[in-house]
Amino acid sequence: MTSTGDDRVARGEQLVLATLIGGVGNHAGAWRRPNSRVEEKYDLRLFTDLVGRAEAAKLHAVFLADGLRLETDTLRSQPFAGLEPVTLLSALAAVTSRIGLIGSISTTFSEPYTVARQLASLDHISNGRAGWNLVTSAWGEENYGRSLPPHDERYERGAEFAEVLFALFDSWAADAITVDRATGVYADPAKVRAIDHVGKHFDVRGPLNVARPPQGRPVVAQAGSSEIGQDVAARFADVVFTTGRTTDEDSRRFYRSLKDRVAATGRDPGSVKILPGVSPIIGRTETEAKAVERELNGFIDLVSGRAKLSRQLAGVDLDDLELDEPVPLERLPQESQVQGRRSRFGVYRALVEDGWTLRRLIHWEVASAGHHVPVGSSEQIAELLLRRFEAGAADGFVLLPSYVPEGFTLLTDEVVPILQERGAFQTEYAHETLRGNLGIGPVA
Amino acid sequence: MTSTGDDRVARGEQLVLATLIGGVGNHAGAWRRPNSRVEEKYDLRLFTDLVGRAEAAKLHAVFLADGLRLETDTLRSQPFAGLEPVTLLSALAAVTSRIGLIGSISTTFSEPYTVARQLASLDHISNGRAGWNLVTSAWGEENYGRSLPPHDERYERGAEFAEVLFALFDSWAADAITVDRATGVYADPAKVRAIDHVGKHFDVRGPLNVARPPQGRPVVAQAGSSEIGQDVAARFADVVFTTGRTTDEDSRRFYRSLKDRVAATGRDPGSVKILPGVSPIIGRTETEAKAVERELNGFIDLVSGRAKLSRQLAGVDLDDLELDEPVPLERLPQESQVQGRRSRFGVYRALVEDGWTLRRLIHWEVASAGHHVPVGSSEQIAELLLRRFEAGAADGFVLLPSYVPEGFTLLTDEVVPILQERGAFQTEYAHETLRGNLGIGPVA
Repeated sequence: MTSTGDDRVARGEQLVLATLIGGVGNHAGAWRRPNSRVEEKYDLRLFTDLVGRAEAAKLHAVFLADGLRLETDTLRSQPFAGLEPVTLLSALAAVTSRIGLIGSISTTFSEPYTVARQLASLDHISNGRAGWNLVTSAWGEENYGRSLPPHDERYERGAEFAEVLFALFDSWAADAITVDRATGVYADPAKVRAIDHVGKHFDVRGPLNVARPPQGRPVVAQAGSSEIGQDVAARFADVVFTTGRTTDEDSRRFYRSLKDRVAATGRDPGSVKILPGVSPIIGRTETEAKAVERELNGFIDLVSGRAKLSRQLAGVDLDDLELDEPVPLERLPQESQVQGRRSRFGVYRALVEDGWTLRRLIHWEVASAGHHVPVGSSEQIAELLLRRFEAGAADGFVLLPSYVPEGFTLLTDEVVPILQERGAFQTEYAHETLRGNLGIGPVA
Repeated sequence: MTSTGDDRVARGEQLVLATLIGGVGNHAGAWRRPNSRVEEKYDLRLFTDLVGRAEAAKLHAVFLADGLRLETDTLRSQPFAGLEPVTLLSALAAVTSRIGLIGSISTTFSEPYTVARQLASLDHISNGRAGWNLVTSAWGEENYGRSLPPHDERYERGAEFAEVLFALFDSWAADAITVDRATGVYADPAKVRAIDHVGKHFDVRGPLNVARPPQGRPVVAQAGSSEIGQDVAARFADVVFTTGRTTDEDSRRFYRSLKDRVAATGRDPGSVKILPGVSPIIGRTETEAKAVERELNGFIDLVSGRAKLSRQLAGVDLDDLELDEPVPLERLPQESQVQGRRSRFGVYRALVEDGWTLRRLIHWEVASAGHHVPVGSSEQIAELLLRRFEAGAADGFVLLPSYVPEGFTLLTDEVVPILQERGAFQTEYAHETLRGNLGIGPVA
């Protein structure tokens, strides 16, 4: 069921909420706040604390992002490297019981048999809470001894990768393991089948050597918002983690377009949850939020901010530009020529078209990484999320705390309870599995 | 320091003990015992219990084996598939505090940048307890769309793989992260360097995008015992997990040969721990142990036992042979012609040379998987381990419980205390890291 009306909560619908956790906050200056736990960026305890808090707030899932290279030009002032998602999520599975665990894994630089084994294992270890964020990687080729395939070829490979994973998860019937000690029959080999996949990018015989995961298939998330990215999402994704749209109208247009694509594949549009990223700068009051915003922006290192912005703008050289002059539009390529993070590039290009200065763009980039950054009190943020949900622009959100821990605690301890009081968010987990809690049911 | 005398314990040396855990026991029939926990083969709680017990016994490390395909011909009667090691070890890291966590990862079907990230992350998550068992894979090619490289080429790639991993771990200086909130300096980019590896098998620029692991390098284990396998172990391994030798003299010869190779590379032979696999069938008394052995052998399915044996014998067809006739030696290739598990093949070939019948070989295979299978009381097993240690044939052992949970509990709760009473095994962990507890120190 797809809703675009403005009475969704009254009709019993609720938001899906996830959170993306990097450890220090989405704002590039957040680590410099006095209480940041940046020293613990490689310490499991930090993540156990944060995910434990997310679980106490009944969030549906935690996301971990990933990248396949170190950005040495911003390393001096920005702690972006961190723990690898599959290992960290597996550790978190052992210390949580209900929250979903979704990690980014690249289809361009991975092998499907290996990824299927790890995801199926994570799903077993977590009793059905594993999720995979299908990413095609915009960089990393220098660490894998090959060149980055062009944008659309990456998505083509990504789609075949997902097909292979689905076939491998399905290679064991749910009742293949029988365990009869008396007769010595452990499993029925007729219920475990080779997949014999022979494709353009992969030849995989199978079957998987991990039994069928509890969810049938781990949940699939997808973030690509280019045309082909949306097509891949429509075919394979359970959750779409979108980015960049700052107005209700933009979000609604994307939402409708994607749901239409889902329907065109023959899937139920209601079974695909669209969750835009939102990275609020929250304070207990609006005044405090604005003070935090000023503080965070004061922490920005403009040199690495310039490098980071350049990366979002398809690598365009910005070194000779004055901070308070508009960025010349003619420096930028067309969106269709960009090979990675294409839709995000489009968001930035629109701001350049609007005449934004270099300084303003850098401030926006380091605060948002391309996501919407509303500034306000917990009440104001909760209202904004509700309004966008009711406007048919989202089925929920991926919350990216702009600063940790305080900005995260305000989300879990103030924003979520407001949504719960309005009846717009779950007060308990209703199911054991992530699929169950997302309301998208098990895989047949 | 390498010891070959017979007074090692008196001089203050102690055994290194690890255990390899698959969940149901090393004997192929163990799952049919009434108390086996075979239904929990995909349940984290089983492994949490077993590894918790190993940690309470102060074992140095737990090993997880791995394979890259499903053996469908034995699936009916043998529960060999299971959870993938990296994910399971990461989960176990969260619920343990001192025991080492060593997993097999293939160098033939993996990418070094991905493996380096996961191992470094596991090392951070576990506070310095990660280990990597370098394996080159004897099969799995059908799931990776390529043919299996010849034996020696696999080891050549394995050696280059280890070189890349070491360089990536070293790409961050230990003091690269500085965290100065006031000046906004997070790290010193001069202390994080590209590795610019260009080799025959891999081109990897680096640096790693995970900070230097707590151990400097995770511990490296290696099991290959062929000539080139021993050379790779001598160059890169901290721990050698050997197999198959059932006599003291055989074990001593291998031990000396490998220590000599280590010395020839310029490394300290005492810094490489040689741990033969031992899979005892233990009872509270010798009589009980023999009864368990009979029970376990009675559980054997000879059809899949024949298939399993065939695999260990380089795929030779055994279908037409009578169970109580000797296996004809002329069916077997020479050891040097075998492409995978070569040294293990040599052990089996020697038994065929000795005139073993097919039935006896199958019984030995399903009980041992190539490891030494002594049968006796806890006291007898402890004596055997001590004798082999004192004979200069081992620095310790990888214990493979033949049946779980009872056979494992006898190891941890009876055999280990006997060794502790003799002063031959640690009664506490002396260090935080696996390297520390192995006595091989940190990487400079």
